[in-house]
Amino acid sequence: MAAEVICVGTELLLGDILNSNSQYLAKELAALGVPHFYQTVVGDNIDRVHQAIEIAANRSSILIFTGGLGPTPDDLTTESIASYFNTPLVEHPEVIADIQQKFAQSGRIMTPSNRKQALQPAGADVLPNPTGTAPGMIWQPRAGLTIFTFPGVPREMQRMWRDTAVPFLKTQGYGQNTIYSRSLRFFGIPEAALAEKVNHLFNSANPTVAPYAGKGEVRLRISARAANEAEANALIEPIAQEIKQIAGVHYYGDDEDTLASVVGGLLKAKGQTLSVAESCTGGGLGQMLTDIPGSSEYFMGGVISYAN
Amino acid sequence: MAAEVICVGTELLLGDILNSNSQYLAKELAALGVPHFYQTVVGDNIDRVHQAIEIAANRSSILIFTGGLGPTPDDLTTESIASYFNTPLVEHPEVIADIQQKFAQSGRIMTPSNRKQALQPAGADVLPNPTGTAPGMIWQPRAGLTIFTFPGVPREMQRMWRDTAVPFLKTQGYGQNTIYSRSLRFFGIPEAALAEKVNHLFNSANPTVAPYAGKGEVRLRISARAANEAEANALIEPIAQEIKQIAGVHYYGDDEDTLASVVGGLLKAKGQTLSVAESCTGGGLGQMLTDIPGSSEYFMGGVISYAN
Repeated sequence: MAAEVICVGTELLLGDILNSNSQYLAKELAALGVPHFYQTVVGDNIDRVHQAIEIAANRSSILIFTGGLGPTPDDLTTESIASYFNTPLVEHPEVIADIQQKFAQSGRIMTPSNRKQALQPAGADVLPNPTGTAPGMIWQPRAGLTIFTFPGVPREMQRMWRDTAVPFLKTQGYGQNTIYSRSLRFFGIPEAALAEKVNHLFNSANPTVAPYAGKGEVRLRISARAANEAEANALIEPIAQEIKQIAGVHYYGDDEDTLASVVGGLLKAKGQTLSVAESCTGGGLGQMLTDIPGSSEYFMGGVISYAN
Repeated sequence: MAAEVICVGTELLLGDILNSNSQYLAKELAALGVPHFYQTVVGDNIDRVHQAIEIAANRSSILIFTGGLGPTPDDLTTESIASYFNTPLVEHPEVIADIQQKFAQSGRIMTPSNRKQALQPAGADVLPNPTGTAPGMIWQPRAGLTIFTFPGVPREMQRMWRDTAVPFLKTQGYGQNTIYSRSLRFFGIPEAALAEKVNHLFNSANPTVAPYAGKGEVRLRISARAANEAEANALIEPIAQEIKQIAGVHYYGDDEDTLASVVGGLLKAKGQTLSVAESCTGGGLGQMLTDIPGSSEYFMGGVISYAN
């Protein structure tokens, strides 16, 4: 049972948009242990979306669509899926009510074209969109085939994915033997230099160790396949300790840590505070520091002295 | 004659990498006026690459592969393409010599696995890689089908694309009639509301008009197919004027304009200056303003008053 990601949008084929949704979904599927062999991008064209469904439905059992759920005429993912499976669209009054309420909250009146967003194929369940007007769906048009649709706006898609698809996939038995990863973060050492120091770890099968060069820093990702987090940690921890010892002062944090969050943690631990005086960073240093939740405990503010 | 982009790499299916190559190629194809209806991502697996070729070769006449040209065993794009078309691989001595020289320049010795990178299907022309060891190819395995391969490293791929694919496509008559686009940017109006006001323009064939919702703003893109920029502008300009009149104060700029760059332009034009006093944006407003080149002419600095 493999999943396939199908991103619908002519803007992707024109290069207007970087396809970050397919990366997000790829990461999520990997974390849940769902096999995932193909991704497709197709434009806003019913015939070509039909072709993409034909191909994907014959090789994968979970089709995950993003994009094309908006109110404008070029948004035709839902109607393409319905017509491919010869299924009529039905209007969901609760979705109309939800959209009306969202418009009312922002002091606006719902436009007639938004009604389209309340249409789903008969038999499909609506996936609520808590942060936007375009709901998605989960639908089994035939035995052994499950279709998800999500809006193309990454923030909305990610929230709906976590709220709906992840629980569904867990009921299907996924997420039992899961890949757990820990990233170790390094600063002040080039990727190749770090990689050479830990070269002997790259052939390890479980956990695996892989290097990534990022913006101004390097990461080593340790990934273990295990039945639960405790078992995964038992595999990851000794490797992590070995790497930290080898890397010395260049290691600064794990996973979602940033230089700013680590600095913040040290300040909080020591009861110290920080102010910044910025010139050519123009507020960027303050922003990095205040992007960290709770930074008002230790960040006092700053001055931006920028002019020539 | 449509082109199709096929990105090969399990790292894409695991979400380790953001697929920026497909966006780059999409933009390039649009600029050259080459139709482009599908993009595919497939892992490092011969059978699945074969399947992807089977599908793409039946609906597109130019297949553009990126990735899977490296020296390691999981790099199998070239051999998959050759075996799909029942064509033997032949070694190109000039590529071996080139790789040896590149290794020598950096004081290293070529590894045996790099020899693999000198193999191409019989009949294919080598596309030199000036900045890396993995050459690509251009090959017509049968009449009406042209295959390009490029390495997955974006910098190498882009250089080779410009040096080889662009001249080839121009000899095929592309790049004469080019798509020129202008984006108009709007703030303070929802996508659906703006779309309804300009609804009558969405059926226009040349130029086309399409709406996009972005982070806190909406864009309308006007795209014209024309022989040169002047002719394109003659098609775009009247539509742009009509839209600006309809949208009124919600229109704020074109193309690469941002709220910060437009504010900056107005300040410069009037000889005025700006300072900011920020609280919960923590420096973000200053950073937006100072991201604009030349902002020191008008941006005086600011205070960040953040603490509780």
